[in-house]
Amino acid sequence: MNDAVSIAAAVREGKVSAVEVTKAAIARIAAQDNQLNCFTAVIAETALTDAARIDREIAQGNHPGILAGVPFAVKNLFDIAGRTTLAGSKINAENPAASQDATALAKLKQAGAVLVGALNMDEYAYGFVTENSHYGATHNPHDLQRVAGGSSGGSAAAVAAGLVPLTLGSDTNGSIRVPAALCGVFGLKPTYGRLSRAGVALFSSSFDHIGPFARSVQDIATVFDVLQGEDDRDPVCTKRPPELVLPQLKQDISDIRIAIAADYFTKGAEPEALAAVQKIADSLDVTEYVTIPEAHRARAAAFVITASEGANLHLDKLRCRPQDFDSATRDRFLAGALIPSSWYLQAQRFRKWYRDRVREVFQNVDIILAPTTPISTPLIGQQTMILDGEEILVRPHLGLFTQPLSFIGLPVLSVPIQHQNTLPLGVQLIAAPYNEALILRVAAALEVKGVVSAPIV
Amino acid sequence: MNDAVSIAAAVREGKVSAVEVTKAAIARIAAQDNQLNCFTAVIAETALTDAARIDREIAQGNHPGILAGVPFAVKNLFDIAGRTTLAGSKINAENPAASQDATALAKLKQAGAVLVGALNMDEYAYGFVTENSHYGATHNPHDLQRVAGGSSGGSAAAVAAGLVPLTLGSDTNGSIRVPAALCGVFGLKPTYGRLSRAGVALFSSSFDHIGPFARSVQDIATVFDVLQGEDDRDPVCTKRPPELVLPQLKQDISDIRIAIAADYFTKGAEPEALAAVQKIADSLDVTEYVTIPEAHRARAAAFVITASEGANLHLDKLRCRPQDFDSATRDRFLAGALIPSSWYLQAQRFRKWYRDRVREVFQNVDIILAPTTPISTPLIGQQTMILDGEEILVRPHLGLFTQPLSFIGLPVLSVPIQHQNTLPLGVQLIAAPYNEALILRVAAALEVKGVVSAPIV
Repeated sequence: MNDAVSIAAAVREGKVSAVEVTKAAIARIAAQDNQLNCFTAVIAETALTDAARIDREIAQGNHPGILAGVPFAVKNLFDIAGRTTLAGSKINAENPAASQDATALAKLKQAGAVLVGALNMDEYAYGFVTENSHYGATHNPHDLQRVAGGSSGGSAAAVAAGLVPLTLGSDTNGSIRVPAALCGVFGLKPTYGRLSRAGVALFSSSFDHIGPFARSVQDIATVFDVLQGEDDRDPVCTKRPPELVLPQLKQDISDIRIAIAADYFTKGAEPEALAAVQKIADSLDVTEYVTIPEAHRARAAAFVITASEGANLHLDKLRCRPQDFDSATRDRFLAGALIPSSWYLQAQRFRKWYRDRVREVFQNVDIILAPTTPISTPLIGQQTMILDGEEILVRPHLGLFTQPLSFIGLPVLSVPIQHQNTLPLGVQLIAAPYNEALILRVAAALEVKGVVSAPIV
Repeated sequence: MNDAVSIAAAVREGKVSAVEVTKAAIARIAAQDNQLNCFTAVIAETALTDAARIDREIAQGNHPGILAGVPFAVKNLFDIAGRTTLAGSKINAENPAASQDATALAKLKQAGAVLVGALNMDEYAYGFVTENSHYGATHNPHDLQRVAGGSSGGSAAAVAAGLVPLTLGSDTNGSIRVPAALCGVFGLKPTYGRLSRAGVALFSSSFDHIGPFARSVQDIATVFDVLQGEDDRDPVCTKRPPELVLPQLKQDISDIRIAIAADYFTKGAEPEALAAVQKIADSLDVTEYVTIPEAHRARAAAFVITASEGANLHLDKLRCRPQDFDSATRDRFLAGALIPSSWYLQAQRFRKWYRDRVREVFQNVDIILAPTTPISTPLIGQQTMILDGEEILVRPHLGLFTQPLSFIGLPVLSVPIQHQNTLPLGVQLIAAPYNEALILRVAAALEVKGVVSAPIV
């Protein structure tokens, strides 16, 4: 299967119909998802109706949109009109159906994309492994014994396996970047507030972002541009006018100052993860290092705020039916409910300080390179790993390098690095707020060089 | 002694010199403050130098400012360049001197006012009585056995006793309005963020306001206008251009819709406090009632946020030298440090809801009347009072009617109601954000009718 933009071009040119593309996607899901467990719902009937409408538009000579006929799916915390939004939870399965589509989903449909289903995730987005006790673990297409990463594990694995070329996920502490890295696809966490979250179940409001997974930089840029724009339904969404990124992708990148994240981001990682960063740096002739100060404190503060805000959101249910939570999320929410407010306030106070320091760092550099995860995908059920000679828990530490960045809402793209017969790894391209264009220009250059790629498994 | 505006006029017209006015103020303080304990510092030498400069300006034919030669003083949490800012604390007495004046103080000086001293307060502004264990209790000029209210007790009592015509205080949950009411003077708590707090020691950042005490509406309006304007030193300060209130004071008020706060604001108060509201209502022919919904929850949420933010601010000192706090503030800060973050977040969540509800109330009314305190000034050391047949603690309940309003930053003026041989009481004139002009127009009309007044005790 091709990438989203190629599919849309073929559909628009009449080389293939949207209905044919959609049927093929549904057939792939039927054939492979038993093993992968990416999907919690497949919406075949509506998808085929939507695809037929696209085909009619084309037959009538109308422009059916830049994503005409592209099958896509969304993490099951996006509202789909007429369906119940699970957010990975058993409790939420009792909720009434959503009355309207999430804004992001509506925009993709408006651009001609065809929604084919909803995707598995960690309960309430609180995890890095998508081992969901209610809906099962999502398996990594590169090795079915291994996790897809999380919390948007279904979104990453579905793209990696080629079930659909395009998915949406959400990222609070790394939930787009971690699974993108572990499944070997592109995953973009945009600037905080740049894309509307309306109709998306929140986890920790001051951190939650949405973003796309895809197998090419062009697809990521296309979707990002489609999703930009202010939204009255989301009070957090920016009022800035959109700045289209797609037309900038082929610009020369020699003016972009790139450096490698030093100190914190070079410790506690397997050699392979650091080698992946080095590979990118070498291909771009980057030798400079920069230090993001106090990143370990940023991560600690992110833990405190996430647990506090998440616990507050679910407090009533934690009180009256704790047994219906996934035990992995329940115990952390309960702990979060006991965090003193003074810790929370201190974390928010530190956050302002840290934001100012990182702003200073970006006066001398445009793009910073860092590993996405400290290791490649662990085994399903694996509890611990050895890093720097120390046995530590797998689950929390998959976010070691992602948390200090989402903490202040920086835009980050995880790009996939793959070698034959090894598991994929990701490298984060990090920029100052609203500099997604710089990130995607560098990623496009890396793609042209063949340094990053996301072939179907 | 006249009010500030009259003094300034006399100084400008050469009827009296700024130095003479300043000397007279210092002499009054020397004569009376032994009994009252309003001042924690008198700055005689600098004040006389400043006053002499004003006199020279006048002699040279320059305009010396709208507050030329007016002696004033500030709660001791305002920075005064070259002096240590106490914020009512023994610990803070060890701090280095402030390097520059608080913005509000600098603006008053710029307008020609002459700073003569710093005023007593509850430690860290956390109280309603100004019974400070380090610096002593401030006594109410109306009855020296009784409290001045707090936490800006020194600011209110100094104006009520005529030591100075003008002072500044701060209000987090009622700390301007409560002492203004109990001492029988005007006290304005402006809209949250409307006046710069730069150089003011914070207590609970999301609630803290500064504002003036004076003995006439014209003085309050004059100072408010002088203090307006954005300030780069205060990130919370509004970017709105100033809207001068003084020129609007004499406008007819027949277009202003006024109502009495019902339900919560009519319960748990002594009959005299409700009679004061009724007196204002009668004089304005107001018979309508409006309900501010869930005011009791707003007060509860204000307690939670104040204790949490205050505790966080002082956490290090609470850990290492708790014995050096005033016991009244220490124990509440310690309790605040143990409040779960989930309570804090819930209180902030409720706050958004409540703000929206109150905004709806103000679609049908411009000014709401409510008692400032449930009782007139209690005795110094008095622990409990009987309200509605129930014995309750005095200190927290003095803020019963003020807390639900500062909780969402509404502008409020406490106007003084006095009868012969009784203790003063205050009535709150409450408006929607940024409607200080409406409040002050109504207050000016009440002053003309003789319903509200603040004679020197």
